[in-house]
Amino acid sequence: MQRTVFFISDGTAITAETLGHTLLTQFNGIDFRQVRLPFVDSRVKAEKAVTEINRAADQDQAQPIVFNSIIDPELGRIIGNSRGHLVDLFGAFIGSLEQALGVKSSPTVGQAHGLGDIEAYETRMEATNYAMNHDDGMNIRLGDADLILVGVSRSGKTPTCLYMALHFGVKAANYPLTDDDLEQSRLPVFLRQHRQKLFGLTIEPERLAQIRETRKPGSRYASIRQCKREVESAESLIRMEGVSILSTTHSSIEEIASRIMLKLGLDREMH
Amino acid sequence: MQRTVFFISDGTAITAETLGHTLLTQFNGIDFRQVRLPFVDSRVKAEKAVTEINRAADQDQAQPIVFNSIIDPELGRIIGNSRGHLVDLFGAFIGSLEQALGVKSSPTVGQAHGLGDIEAYETRMEATNYAMNHDDGMNIRLGDADLILVGVSRSGKTPTCLYMALHFGVKAANYPLTDDDLEQSRLPVFLRQHRQKLFGLTIEPERLAQIRETRKPGSRYASIRQCKREVESAESLIRMEGVSILSTTHSSIEEIASRIMLKLGLDREMH
Repeated sequence: MQRTVFFISDGTAITAETLGHTLLTQFNGIDFRQVRLPFVDSRVKAEKAVTEINRAADQDQAQPIVFNSIIDPELGRIIGNSRGHLVDLFGAFIGSLEQALGVKSSPTVGQAHGLGDIEAYETRMEATNYAMNHDDGMNIRLGDADLILVGVSRSGKTPTCLYMALHFGVKAANYPLTDDDLEQSRLPVFLRQHRQKLFGLTIEPERLAQIRETRKPGSRYASIRQCKREVESAESLIRMEGVSILSTTHSSIEEIASRIMLKLGLDREMH
Repeated sequence: MQRTVFFISDGTAITAETLGHTLLTQFNGIDFRQVRLPFVDSRVKAEKAVTEINRAADQDQAQPIVFNSIIDPELGRIIGNSRGHLVDLFGAFIGSLEQALGVKSSPTVGQAHGLGDIEAYETRMEATNYAMNHDDGMNIRLGDADLILVGVSRSGKTPTCLYMALHFGVKAANYPLTDDDLEQSRLPVFLRQHRQKLFGLTIEPERLAQIRETRKPGSRYASIRQCKREVESAESLIRMEGVSILSTTHSSIEEIASRIMLKLGLDREMH
């Protein structure tokens, strides 16, 4: 069974899509065809969206689902006249929020993911530069780091660092455990002195071998034997040093980042 | 006036926070103290959350707002017994979605930002590596790029590329326009041959000077005169080459990324 789902917004449509995805994951067995329609900020664009929704209704022979986060009431009404099943993110809550807060809302488009203030933007940019310059053990002067991820090569350190920097303005460095470190069963001194900032990532050897195989097919580096040995040594080394550890095998970047920040008390406002 | 806002979830709380932020931006003049409570996945944690909510109610002498995206109905009920104003993201929509889709939902925690399928995860990882390895003109073999951002130094190219890679699996490269390029008033050949993948970023000279000043205080590089000259030449060069251009001055990374992808027809599913 195929159903078409629209995410419509006068901004990026990120809010509509984020909530929409979460809701759709609660329904199994349906093949959702997903269509994003961001920046629907004029009557003409709203009417075009309605045409698309109605066309999908004809094609699917079923009502499309429309996650709508358009703020302008007039444009919202146009979308509301389509043949889709409307999930109105603002309409559903704004009234009761006005009551609870005791003030009227003032419609403002596209503030949610906006710069907000320049300071927060700077923090994200600076953190992103930091993550780029302190990736993969590139720089061992780690005094400014908010956290330092350690783990074997391809355990998910780089994307996790970049995600935390981009979204939370966290200065995240990472260091790949080398054969030397693993043989000596101890972390280098420049990491030990920042122990309270360290966090370990690990991964199932089978998955690691898969990932490495796509990068260096047929190599020793990608062999299951090598991956097993590295992961085992790394895990025991990280535990021995008293550093927290998380497996990335079955988690998303978002989840890993959230768990690490919660654990290290780095829980800042999301941007 | 201060009001405390909670974002509660049995997962990362990203969904609750994303929708919550969007809704709160519609209310001006209130100082929102924001508290994230991710991974509330047990009775004990839910009861701790209730204690925190009730304490905030006492402190603020006003009802806290609680954006709740806990899926487990039992834990949801515990939160519902707090003294907060509950905004129940799932409860509000899941019933009408069940009707529209004609199937019952099956509660699944934390799938929204989950791996989903390994293939999508791989795509994001590969794209992130690509963005790292093709940052700042580091690599001029751009045949595999989905898009290539051009612009003066510090116009926002790197974070935009990383964001698109991490979230959309888009292989985004970037190239900083050099003095040579600007003087010759033409793009290098290795960019021209990929013209359909090019996109220009620009920025107000005053803002650029501010950003550069924090990096190289008092330098010619950060002077308003130099920034003005570079921005003017870059904009006219980019326009002359027939390449689309966007200003990053008043936009968020999310918005810039969304607009570029829409323009280049790279609109993929968000992860």
